[in-house]
Amino acid sequence: MAYRKTPAELDRLAAAREHLVERATAVVADVGWANASVTAVAAAAGMSVGSVYQHFPSKGALAVEVFRRASGREVEVLGEVLREGGRDPVERLALGVGVFARRAMESRGLAHALLAAPAEPAVGEERLLFRGRYREVFAEVIREGIGAGVLPGQDPDVTAAALTGAIGEVLVDPLSAPAEGDAADRLVTELVAMSLRCAGAAPAH
Amino acid sequence: MAYRKTPAELDRLAAAREHLVERATAVVADVGWANASVTAVAAAAGMSVGSVYQHFPSKGALAVEVFRRASGREVEVLGEVLREGGRDPVERLALGVGVFARRAMESRGLAHALLAAPAEPAVGEERLLFRGRYREVFAEVIREGIGAGVLPGQDPDVTAAALTGAIGEVLVDPLSAPAEGDAADRLVTELVAMSLRCAGAAPAH
Repeated sequence: MAYRKTPAELDRLAAAREHLVERATAVVADVGWANASVTAVAAAAGMSVGSVYQHFPSKGALAVEVFRRASGREVEVLGEVLREGGRDPVERLALGVGVFARRAMESRGLAHALLAAPAEPAVGEERLLFRGRYREVFAEVIREGIGAGVLPGQDPDVTAAALTGAIGEVLVDPLSAPAEGDAADRLVTELVAMSLRCAGAAPAH
Repeated sequence: MAYRKTPAELDRLAAAREHLVERATAVVADVGWANASVTAVAAAAGMSVGSVYQHFPSKGALAVEVFRRASGREVEVLGEVLREGGRDPVERLALGVGVFARRAMESRGLAHALLAAPAEPAVGEERLLFRGRYREVFAEVIREGIGAGVLPGQDPDVTAAALTGAIGEVLVDPLSAPAEGDAADRLVTELVAMSLRCAGAAPAH
């Protein structure tokens, strides 16, 4: 007969797992995927290595959960800005790219890990899936812009993929360099301008 | 006293290494990084697993060499087209993106492995370095275009990074789908148009 956990035990387990994922995310942000060993994560979470493995079967499974959680938050924020009522699609695109880039520049370590840093293949697979979600939210606003006549005819899926790849690549180097206020502002301005050009928005917009 | 190899032995070793890298590249193109085991590569090269390890200390080292060789060829071809005399910078940019995309579509398996497929971290590191080389060749032609007054003012490094990321991301899905003549042509056309917009080239160019 299998041992059944009580509701209180299940709650404690869920809270411990949550705490572990949060601490692991902080470790990844600090030292990157390669150095975020189970030992380092266990120490940061105030747990034994054995307890970490009670929650996740492998370092890879924990890394995937960290990636999924943090990337999920970013794509959600971007989607909300891109769909926000009361603004035209081009404004929303500019705002969305700006918000995404500023959030990345404010959490450089984590953003670098999510967007670009070499990671184990399981995280790489997850990254491909998330890039698909970014593409979807961009394609939606571009399609709307074409429909509204504020963007020229184009394949919205190609431009959406282009923006997804472009924004990630533009941010790679700045995310691994030390923060500088003015340089960061100029970069965000350039990135937004490039994104609008890429989608064919009129420059004067 | 160390045993010295004769010139004839060194030649044979170099030829065997060359053959091994070529066969390994074909295996990666066929089955991807994850399935390109040392056993599979050894079989394809008609060598023993032990001989493979005489040439490369690890699967990772062989993978890096395969990556470096194949990516080196692509960035060289792109650089040549982007620098070709007798054409203006915008024409060269359009031609370069078109040539790059067509070459990728003609060697889908390999291009997918080079551009996007999750791979071990050592290959990921190498990919970041090569993206830097792509950025340099794009930045050069964009800078030239701005100087010649055929491209608007912009940070050439941002646009170059954007193009590098954009082109890779646009090609990911098509490279993993079966080849279709017309669809491939349309994709290349869209990709070139997007790249020109991204750099701010006048649409009628």
